[in-house]
Amino acid sequence: MHDIRLKGFKKYNRIDDILPNFLKEIQELPFETILTENSLKRIVASDILSPVNVPHFSRSAMDGFAIRSETTFGASPNSPKIFKLVGKLSACETSSIGISTKDVIQVATGSPIPPNADAVIKLENTKRLENQIEVYFPVTPGQNISKIGEDIEKGDLLLSKGHSIRPQDIPLLLECSINELKVIKKPKVAIFPTGSELVHPGSPPEIGKIIETNSYSIAALSEIYGAQPFRFDIVPDDLILLQKAIEKGKMYDIIVFSGGTSVGEYDLLPSVISSYQNGKMIAHGFAMRPGSPTAIGFIDSKPIFCLPGFPVATMISFEVFVGPTIRTMLGAKKLDIKPLLYAELSKNIPSELGRRDFVRVSLEIQENKIYATPTRLKGSSLISSLVKSDGIVEIPENVEGLEKGMIVPVRLFPIW
Amino acid sequence: MHDIRLKGFKKYNRIDDILPNFLKEIQELPFETILTENSLKRIVASDILSPVNVPHFSRSAMDGFAIRSETTFGASPNSPKIFKLVGKLSACETSSIGISTKDVIQVATGSPIPPNADAVIKLENTKRLENQIEVYFPVTPGQNISKIGEDIEKGDLLLSKGHSIRPQDIPLLLECSINELKVIKKPKVAIFPTGSELVHPGSPPEIGKIIETNSYSIAALSEIYGAQPFRFDIVPDDLILLQKAIEKGKMYDIIVFSGGTSVGEYDLLPSVISSYQNGKMIAHGFAMRPGSPTAIGFIDSKPIFCLPGFPVATMISFEVFVGPTIRTMLGAKKLDIKPLLYAELSKNIPSELGRRDFVRVSLEIQENKIYATPTRLKGSSLISSLVKSDGIVEIPENVEGLEKGMIVPVRLFPIW
Repeated sequence: MHDIRLKGFKKYNRIDDILPNFLKEIQELPFETILTENSLKRIVASDILSPVNVPHFSRSAMDGFAIRSETTFGASPNSPKIFKLVGKLSACETSSIGISTKDVIQVATGSPIPPNADAVIKLENTKRLENQIEVYFPVTPGQNISKIGEDIEKGDLLLSKGHSIRPQDIPLLLECSINELKVIKKPKVAIFPTGSELVHPGSPPEIGKIIETNSYSIAALSEIYGAQPFRFDIVPDDLILLQKAIEKGKMYDIIVFSGGTSVGEYDLLPSVISSYQNGKMIAHGFAMRPGSPTAIGFIDSKPIFCLPGFPVATMISFEVFVGPTIRTMLGAKKLDIKPLLYAELSKNIPSELGRRDFVRVSLEIQENKIYATPTRLKGSSLISSLVKSDGIVEIPENVEGLEKGMIVPVRLFPIW
Repeated sequence: MHDIRLKGFKKYNRIDDILPNFLKEIQELPFETILTENSLKRIVASDILSPVNVPHFSRSAMDGFAIRSETTFGASPNSPKIFKLVGKLSACETSSIGISTKDVIQVATGSPIPPNADAVIKLENTKRLENQIEVYFPVTPGQNISKIGEDIEKGDLLLSKGHSIRPQDIPLLLECSINELKVIKKPKVAIFPTGSELVHPGSPPEIGKIIETNSYSIAALSEIYGAQPFRFDIVPDDLILLQKAIEKGKMYDIIVFSGGTSVGEYDLLPSVISSYQNGKMIAHGFAMRPGSPTAIGFIDSKPIFCLPGFPVATMISFEVFVGPTIRTMLGAKKLDIKPLLYAELSKNIPSELGRRDFVRVSLEIQENKIYATPTRLKGSSLISSLVKSDGIVEIPENVEGLEKGMIVPVRLFPIW
């Protein structure tokens, strides 16, 4: 059996034997400075500390009356305390006068606290009688006041290097007067679909021709992982044309081919790459399903990926190899952007020892429990298996199948 | 107590008493036709059926030899069967000749199956001796062949109305010759920050002034929910200027104000809206924390939202009211884009009966279990509580606090 197998891949590499070392050779890209308001989904290039206190003045956290707290002690609905209303501030107004023990000043949410006042009593806990205010409840010192630096102190770490900007991070930065920030540049990904059997979408269907779709899915995934995709035209199975494509690809940060990676005679790509003086194939053929014909390497120290031609294998292989490479170039904390959850398997899933399986599953929620059911239909060529699924369950190399009822981690496809 | 409360909100509405009926009044927007390659994250406007079979011809799923399966029965590594190699096809080549019981034709992955052949034997399970091929294993009829329509039959439902396009959906559509599709137009959201205390990001810090950040977080959230945001300048607390803003807002699909919604004297907005002939406030004041001063209504049948001014309350209130409105206009199946998972609480969380609490939690994974810890720090004004959290736990109105050890649903913030 072994010598027969030699006609296929000489060796199927384990992902964990190759990928971590491969990623160690990936350099983080330089930063660029952009406006905070345009920073959604970008990766922070260095720790961001607050240059200011927030709030930068003591302010009311309520609509109500600024008061000296000790004067309210003992107030109750049955025996209210009575104060004189000596002023009224809008949210942005500062008071020139202070208050005595008999006074209150009306404040709005956000009003600076007037001199001498140390608390705010809520509008709802008072009653107004012309120029007098009846106070029905006591307040404690500092109550309903946001103090200087209460939210953020000068020098506090706001966001750390590698964080990806979410909607809530933008108001935090702006509030701290950080109106621009350094983010890592988006890796530029050159995408080359290869194969003489490929035709463009929209071409008339002919026997033997396949519509080229991989460059579109690779572009969409690249974008989601935070890179900037560049789709190139179909490259036929031709030595010279493949070399020309590689030359073009070397102008980008990452080079991705799809197709041309199996052990058939028309699969030229890995040997073309190896033939380059500054090219090296790191591994060709992985113990994984789908995606086993994947090849990864470097040309002029740019990472180059040869993804298998089958649409599902292309996408899974992208998630395993290209996605983490993009994230490493971005210096991102999270290499996988698919949220992780745990689900109970509703069926047995068979697998082979020594190979990592990526099983597409659909999820269903019943009584606060999430159930995962494999949606793998017939083969790795069938893109519908990915379309019908909500996420991926990995079966590790040292496990021979998963059993119904087991709780397994699921990586979710994002929802929009 | 009750008459004192009257100075605050007359009534705190329950979200479930108001929101479902409010959403019933929201109309789906019209569709537009776009290129499939540009459809990532858009919402499908009507069911999409396949106009073709995929594959549209029988093709090899392997690199190997096309063969008549019955001629391989009995082959084994110890007694291989021997065939004559009569041709060789590249992936896109069709064979003009058929094969006899003694022949094989070499095929590549994707090659159309030659006449008479009904299976493909993998390259790895054969050995070549000049023009002869030794076959070491039997194949069954149809083995390693992708049949016409095996993946998708003409008329199959590919994607249903309301589905949001993911990377894997794009190759599926292109493969089925669907190069453009109908998606629902993006709702246009007009965003007006209000409050005389507000200044633009980058303004010098003055006592009493607050940096306006809500329009930026609302814009980022709108984009994530699938809408197109339009940020307008700060509107001071002035009747005429608020009316002018509303007039501008009526040109958009959704109008969002932030600030100006509490019961303080400077909070004019809900009464301005009610004063319009075609304006109606549906509810003002909700039994929720944060976000209770939210007001929702319609003007000229356009939904209008007055979100509270505190940055966290703004964002939570957006998630509860504006997000589902955007998704309803889009006809999206999922009204919430935050993935759902379940986690074990690592701490008690107190809450009040009759109010829905939105608790910010951070997640930690330990031994295949996800733990949620509340990150609520000090108050609803503190945006850092949202920045430090991974998602939201809701405490329903009929529950008085959650206990450590309970398994609770968590809505995750997306990761990029």
